[in-house]
Amino acid sequence: MDLHAYCQEIARRAKEASRRLAAASGAVRNRWLELALAQLRQQSQQILAANQRDLEQAGQFGLTPAQIDRLRLTPSRWDGILEGLRQVRALPDPVGQVIEGHVRPNGLEIRKVRVPLGVLLFIYESRPNVTADAAALAIKSGNAIILRGGKEAAASNQAIVEALRTALAQAGLPEDALQLVATPDRAAVGELLKLNQFIDLVIPRGGESLIRTVAAQATMPVLKHYLGNCHVYVDRAADLDMALKILLNAKCQRPGVCNAAESLLVHADVAETFLRKAEGPLRQHGVEIRGCPRTCDRIAWAKPATDADFAAEFLDLILSVKVVADLDEAIAHINRYGSGHTDAIVTRDLSAARRFTAEVDSAAVMVNASTRFHDGFEFGLGAEIGISTDKFHARGPCGLLELTTYKYVVYGDGQIRT
Amino acid sequence: MDLHAYCQEIARRAKEASRRLAAASGAVRNRWLELALAQLRQQSQQILAANQRDLEQAGQFGLTPAQIDRLRLTPSRWDGILEGLRQVRALPDPVGQVIEGHVRPNGLEIRKVRVPLGVLLFIYESRPNVTADAAALAIKSGNAIILRGGKEAAASNQAIVEALRTALAQAGLPEDALQLVATPDRAAVGELLKLNQFIDLVIPRGGESLIRTVAAQATMPVLKHYLGNCHVYVDRAADLDMALKILLNAKCQRPGVCNAAESLLVHADVAETFLRKAEGPLRQHGVEIRGCPRTCDRIAWAKPATDADFAAEFLDLILSVKVVADLDEAIAHINRYGSGHTDAIVTRDLSAARRFTAEVDSAAVMVNASTRFHDGFEFGLGAEIGISTDKFHARGPCGLLELTTYKYVVYGDGQIRT
Repeated sequence: MDLHAYCQEIARRAKEASRRLAAASGAVRNRWLELALAQLRQQSQQILAANQRDLEQAGQFGLTPAQIDRLRLTPSRWDGILEGLRQVRALPDPVGQVIEGHVRPNGLEIRKVRVPLGVLLFIYESRPNVTADAAALAIKSGNAIILRGGKEAAASNQAIVEALRTALAQAGLPEDALQLVATPDRAAVGELLKLNQFIDLVIPRGGESLIRTVAAQATMPVLKHYLGNCHVYVDRAADLDMALKILLNAKCQRPGVCNAAESLLVHADVAETFLRKAEGPLRQHGVEIRGCPRTCDRIAWAKPATDADFAAEFLDLILSVKVVADLDEAIAHINRYGSGHTDAIVTRDLSAARRFTAEVDSAAVMVNASTRFHDGFEFGLGAEIGISTDKFHARGPCGLLELTTYKYVVYGDGQIRT
Repeated sequence: MDLHAYCQEIARRAKEASRRLAAASGAVRNRWLELALAQLRQQSQQILAANQRDLEQAGQFGLTPAQIDRLRLTPSRWDGILEGLRQVRALPDPVGQVIEGHVRPNGLEIRKVRVPLGVLLFIYESRPNVTADAAALAIKSGNAIILRGGKEAAASNQAIVEALRTALAQAGLPEDALQLVATPDRAAVGELLKLNQFIDLVIPRGGESLIRTVAAQATMPVLKHYLGNCHVYVDRAADLDMALKILLNAKCQRPGVCNAAESLLVHADVAETFLRKAEGPLRQHGVEIRGCPRTCDRIAWAKPATDADFAAEFLDLILSVKVVADLDEAIAHINRYGSGHTDAIVTRDLSAARRFTAEVDSAAVMVNASTRFHDGFEFGLGAEIGISTDKFHARGPCGLLELTTYKYVVYGDGQIRT
């Protein structure tokens, strides 16, 4: 197979399909979601059989048990796929929304109107339930999408995509609005990343090295989600009971996710009291502490933290801890070591809260709440395709709105410029 | 000089300054604009003398007379600089604007708040009046800016930047919020484009090759303004008098700018009448026509158009002309050959207007109005740093709003996730 020609053809067809999709009404796009639900239900046996084939071959790819588990379409994950489609269907249609509008003195009517981006390339790893989510968000927002899943999930993804494409044809929409890159050849991604005349945005979802590689090769914009090195800062004026509750939730409720806390900062004035209070519960939760010298003085079993520990996203029951002299040091530390994802302050002091939220340069800053709330569903924004740590164009949860851009639509009656 | 260390130091200082700037109130940023106006007035003799030195040395850089003219700070350009600062001061402050906000069932208050991007790198050519404009837009929107102007304007830029930095110090803002890259070494740009830990956005303003080079080298997002290959489509249902008026305005009022029309499409049903009507006035305006075979059949003095002509941004009194069978062909032609900048339809048919505005994939689509209106001032949006032909994140005029991003600010009273 001529890989270049193959990728070019996929991308060209996606662009063509995106033109037709952009002209389709929201009712038709929602109708597709209904038909897609029906097709998935109807083809569930074939899809689960395909998933079984992937699982049988998983050994030969050297997958870990955790990776094999992520690959499995359990009954609850299957229900999750269907529920995800229902939720996306229920979200308001972003396309055509008038962001702002006004009439100029010369009578020109200016409107800034939300429109689809065009063609998305979504690169992800082995969870087949993500396939349907991504397709639903893309097509609901009027975009064509090219999916590049992991080879371990090839059969599952193929079966899901076939069902969703059948539904596209039934809805009168172009099937090429949803395409799966079928070749296992890794060079296909490199080829696709060259095609900025067809592809408007790349969304890599996976480990940091995948994202860095994609960002380095891409000729089009990339929606990046790097590390989540999230902080909880316990201010001098904190309610220390609340601070402990928030810390334990942020660190321990689900340590393997990006909005879990990785680092605790404590104001020097309350460090003694707070660390004495937190030491036992953290130990009970099995948390390893890597602390600054002052932390290690107070907690006998803490290990000394290196500079790298303060920059790390552990995704595990490990917490870096630093005693800071004041709010300024806390803010400077977060802006230096943090990843711009989610950072929280616990305080009763309004002025400290205002300064923290203004000066910490992160996608989400929380006052008296757990970092774990930073997520599209918890923010009430609906399903998301990822959480961006970029500033440009989307920051934080990326759902339907973030998969759109805008254009200016201007109506006149013969105005010319003088 | 160690170029790497020099650029690193500039960028690091800019980042630090951006943190302080982000914490400054809008009143302080506006106060800077007032002080900057006063400083420019006070130092006008030195600045004009510096400009004179640039003009004296212009010959040795091999500048064309047109380029030398662009370099000259004429009295009206000098007034333009001052007026530009006044206009930026009068614009509403984008920083802190709540884009949306709501309260979750658990009591969390979610706000999406507009914040500065951080550090901008602005690369531009030899017009020194752009220096003050760019600084004003950046600092008003809370961003630090690194300026890289042309070597031909080095003395003028230096003098203007010194005045503006003096005003920063007077306003109690960090002078490093505004820095000019002082070395003429071209490699400095390459070094700066590596520093994505400090620089949040690059804005290249100049020819296409400059923009392509910057986009290829940059490790941070680039706000691009490529070609303006703008179309006027005269529909079957057009008022042909209005169409001619709009065509002449779009093509001839100022042919050297990006929102001037480069291509005329005419519906076959009215082609005979319209081309007969337009032929004389176009010729009187000195417009050269490069037409499709049907155009050349009707206009004896038209030259045959090549495929490259339909894709070209002439920036000159040249017009490509094509007779199209219908609206579909017009839309397909624009989406294929256009540059996504500005395209206009002239029609009385509401359905044609709706389809054209929905399906033409450009930053601005105009109905019955000249393409020349696509500009921040004409849209009523205020001063702009450029017009983006990108879709991500800003499209069309880029002013204060487009130099910002947002963060989520969340207030709670001890909420944890269950």
